[in-house]
Amino acid sequence: MMPLTRAAILAVGSELLTPTRTDTNSLFITEQLNLLGIDVVFKSVIGDDRRELEHGVRSGLARVDLLVCCGGLGPTDDDLTRVVVADVLGRSLVEDESITARIQARFQGRGLSMPEINRRQAMVPVGAEIIANPNGTAPGLWIEEGEQVIVLLPGPPRELKPMVRALVSGLLRARAGGEPVVRRVIRITGRSESHTDEALQPLYGEWARASVPIAATILASLGQIELHLSAHADSRAQAEVALNLATDRVLAVLGAVVYSTDGRGLEDVVGGLLADRRLTIAAAESCTGGLIMSRLTDVPGSSRYVERGVVVYSNRSKTELLGVPEEVIASHGAVSEPVAIAMAEGIRSRSGVDIGVGVTGIAGPDGGTAEKPVGTVVIAVASPSGSQVRTFRFVGGREMVKFQASQAALDMVRRMLQDPGTPREM
Amino acid sequence: MMPLTRAAILAVGSELLTPTRTDTNSLFITEQLNLLGIDVVFKSVIGDDRRELEHGVRSGLARVDLLVCCGGLGPTDDDLTRVVVADVLGRSLVEDESITARIQARFQGRGLSMPEINRRQAMVPVGAEIIANPNGTAPGLWIEEGEQVIVLLPGPPRELKPMVRALVSGLLRARAGGEPVVRRVIRITGRSESHTDEALQPLYGEWARASVPIAATILASLGQIELHLSAHADSRAQAEVALNLATDRVLAVLGAVVYSTDGRGLEDVVGGLLADRRLTIAAAESCTGGLIMSRLTDVPGSSRYVERGVVVYSNRSKTELLGVPEEVIASHGAVSEPVAIAMAEGIRSRSGVDIGVGVTGIAGPDGGTAEKPVGTVVIAVASPSGSQVRTFRFVGGREMVKFQASQAALDMVRRMLQDPGTPREM
Repeated sequence: MMPLTRAAILAVGSELLTPTRTDTNSLFITEQLNLLGIDVVFKSVIGDDRRELEHGVRSGLARVDLLVCCGGLGPTDDDLTRVVVADVLGRSLVEDESITARIQARFQGRGLSMPEINRRQAMVPVGAEIIANPNGTAPGLWIEEGEQVIVLLPGPPRELKPMVRALVSGLLRARAGGEPVVRRVIRITGRSESHTDEALQPLYGEWARASVPIAATILASLGQIELHLSAHADSRAQAEVALNLATDRVLAVLGAVVYSTDGRGLEDVVGGLLADRRLTIAAAESCTGGLIMSRLTDVPGSSRYVERGVVVYSNRSKTELLGVPEEVIASHGAVSEPVAIAMAEGIRSRSGVDIGVGVTGIAGPDGGTAEKPVGTVVIAVASPSGSQVRTFRFVGGREMVKFQASQAALDMVRRMLQDPGTPREM
Repeated sequence: MMPLTRAAILAVGSELLTPTRTDTNSLFITEQLNLLGIDVVFKSVIGDDRRELEHGVRSGLARVDLLVCCGGLGPTDDDLTRVVVADVLGRSLVEDESITARIQARFQGRGLSMPEINRRQAMVPVGAEIIANPNGTAPGLWIEEGEQVIVLLPGPPRELKPMVRALVSGLLRARAGGEPVVRRVIRITGRSESHTDEALQPLYGEWARASVPIAATILASLGQIELHLSAHADSRAQAEVALNLATDRVLAVLGAVVYSTDGRGLEDVVGGLLADRRLTIAAAESCTGGLIMSRLTDVPGSSRYVERGVVVYSNRSKTELLGVPEEVIASHGAVSEPVAIAMAEGIRSRSGVDIGVGVTGIAGPDGGTAEKPVGTVVIAVASPSGSQVRTFRFVGGREMVKFQASQAALDMVRRMLQDPGTPREM
């Protein structure tokens, strides 16, 4: 049989056609299919409507060799996927007693009896194979029709994901034969999207002409750039080798603005550096309001290096908790380099940690002046080898200013720790 | 002419078929179309592929009376939407000199000359109307074909959104005639999804039979339930009245677990209560790591009521910054009600605020014991009228435990402030 190379994904459910919900299962499915060299050619979202669903299934079967339908496998009248697919294929639905028994056992396990309505979930088109669902009542179905395959999966991600993984290492792997696509995410901060893109231009050309071609996409948001690389190769190993070489080239071109080549977040990278070097950290935050500490403590095991933090929103708290002299605040203003340094050094000496961080700024929307507009943020990092301070002007709304300031502060810590001049166990 | 009632949305762009990007424009477009009583019947994502795009356009025109295409209006070879739509309609493309002039002026404004390639963006199918794009070079197009309408819009949300708004108050409004759908989001915390759903069951039936029918959907995640109501009515005003009545019924049934009926977040609601009552707040956080303070300070103007916060990850910091007696930690453990109370009272008395919050717990993945498993969180709130303390057992990973703990803490503050027994300006 021909290997499967072209797929379409149908997400079924009227709630996915409202302004508040969207299909996200298809992102995971696409990633998994790409690993087997199967491209997703189109995706559609269809409501719980018999005519529309029928049209979607027919239209998919006319265009691809693998059709993945997610959702609409529940026990109610609204759940039409099984019925419509059986109709389109001209097959009848028969009850699979093993499924009924499994659903009954699931209810009994909770001390309940199976509602009669759930029997519908055991109805399968003649000739379908069952895909086990360890996390729910609706089994998935694998249906071969000539050279084509139709896969039906339940909508909840918790149920769908393990089933897709099982397919990719089982039934689907056996039918796939395309070149795998392997992806990598390189993360960058402290440089603009256009500068990054410009610096990478020569690499794009090289990669397009390489024997293992690599495609690159830049996704940028304020304070964060992601470079997504994807390699098409005969094997996964070959793709990984090509991606390693490409990553080295990116590092050579962009240098220290790259903070991660394996998709890790900045708080994770900084945490790893602190743990490796057996250093501790504490932060004194004004405009970031605790965000830096919250990000650092999102990392499992961060209690090894996070000692404490203070959020000093009022001037009084800056003086009481950090010893920032009132006259420094009065003469330079709360948002100033002397205050940021006093905050970083104050938290460092009072808590007895190795690295102290001080952040003060104007997150907006109010509080800006001509000299210090909204978005002005001063960040200081204190270490045994002295203090560094920088003043930034961020754009965007309040939450974006907070995020960018937290990125910049964590990045200053990262670059200080990665500087070969920094002693270990300071 | 017949009013437009059924729409489809096509999002065009190969990047939208990768595992990292998805179409989000359709959510905004759906919301806006629903306001005019236009339903979205299906949506599709299609790559920069001529055959697939042609199929998508034909298939859309066979099923709906309004087809909205987003993306693929750029100046490069990949940008096929204009060409394919003109082909399918059998119309030729002609240059619109006014568009060329506008693009040229845009480039000149930045001291650049227009690249020849951008002339493509001025090519329009015969008979199309131009939709001005204030934020980019690609204009939108409005094309009438018999009773049907095809709208082409650029992909970047910054460009697309104002153009959709202009359509909804202009060309589209004139062609729409359906019943508007108005939505409202009610937010709930501190109750399980199944309990909430069960309590609301009788209302669902009432609403379905009402003269202005209201549809309800529950979206639940850990620590947060959203009830989305949508009303179909002859007029927007009538829908609003029905939604007001429905909201009152929800409040009567669910009571104080409803924290917002206008979509506001919990930090915003708590901030509003503090500001109204002229009260100040400070938090002492262990396992939430600064998240509570960060959420409180996400709200513009929060410096009026947020005085300070401390993140006390180490036992030493709990004693030094809050005065929690070492022997209380030693005898009860850091995660205990006496420690949480001492934290809340310590931050309150040391900072001189009205409300002190203390949170201590085990966010995981490590650190749990049989008696205090991962997810155990103790929260105390101290006020002039005394202290409250509660012990929670949250499920989910580290970040979800942090989030649920921050929800529970903010909610304890909210309920204390909404209690009519709480004095103002304590």
